[in-house]
Amino acid sequence: MNKSAFHQLSYGVYVISTWDKGRATGCTANSAMQITSSPATIAVSINHDNYTNQCIQDTGKFAISILGEHSSPGIIGTFGFKSGKDCNKFDEVEHTVKGYLPVVSDACAYITCEVVDKMETSTHTVFLGRVLDADILKKDAPMTYSYYHNVIKGRSPKNAPTYIE
Amino acid sequence: MNKSAFHQLSYGVYVISTWDKGRATGCTANSAMQITSSPATIAVSINHDNYTNQCIQDTGKFAISILGEHSSPGIIGTFGFKSGKDCNKFDEVEHTVKGYLPVVSDACAYITCEVVDKMETSTHTVFLGRVLDADILKKDAPMTYSYYHNVIKGRSPKNAPTYIE
Repeated sequence: MNKSAFHQLSYGVYVISTWDKGRATGCTANSAMQITSSPATIAVSINHDNYTNQCIQDTGKFAISILGEHSSPGIIGTFGFKSGKDCNKFDEVEHTVKGYLPVVSDACAYITCEVVDKMETSTHTVFLGRVLDADILKKDAPMTYSYYHNVIKGRSPKNAPTYIE
Repeated sequence: MNKSAFHQLSYGVYVISTWDKGRATGCTANSAMQITSSPATIAVSINHDNYTNQCIQDTGKFAISILGEHSSPGIIGTFGFKSGKDCNKFDEVEHTVKGYLPVVSDACAYITCEVVDKMETSTHTVFLGRVLDADILKKDAPMTYSYYHNVIKGRSPKNAPTYIE
């Protein structure tokens, strides 16, 4: 098996956020995809070790902030390489509340969802969310995972399914 | 809700294939993502109306052919706008057998999977597949859904979650 074939799958770069007892928290993710059109649902995959996973289980809601090529790369660092259990990530990154959920202000678009189903795997939960609200925040090309690696020269957090030791 | 926000999510372009009683069949899809790293699993989303869905349920296996920017655009037409119930799609598109599954020869990489779980939604099945085999077929940039729309000027099949009337 040549695992480099996995890197030919295309992804975006997202911050998945929710509330932790009234406090905004979240983590970076590259795994989000629309599943149904009407009603619109979206699946996101979150590692069990991400504190955000437990917070989504508790609130039953999450927001997807879609990062653009001009979104600050610092956002990915803050949300990908720290734990929301230990710090307030949103202290460092400006957010706005959309559809009752915290969203990264410097994203190009957001989608807010209510969890309607989930699938458990050995390390990740795939949450299926019914879309509550969505909008464009600013005109920017969505950042692809490939752009993040090749142009920004970013690396993958350890909890990412695409992580390589 | 501004549904154009959904189009900021990033995808690739894939042919999901399997066997139909010994005959190779498949359909185009843009929804595939790696879920876990070890063991490697990948989720794909297939419309109930795609004949391939039933064939995957029957065989318990599927292959992902990852199309590249230089893969023939005709492949997308053949696999996206016809039904494998009515015709032999692979009569028009050359395939090779990898890990016991039919794969598009003109793809840049392939991943073969065995179904280990699934999540049903109103219109689509999300299949979770444990990777059996994967390899690069040729050096090419993976085709993104954005490239397909903006460069090849392709449209979405009616069964795609991203379809717009």
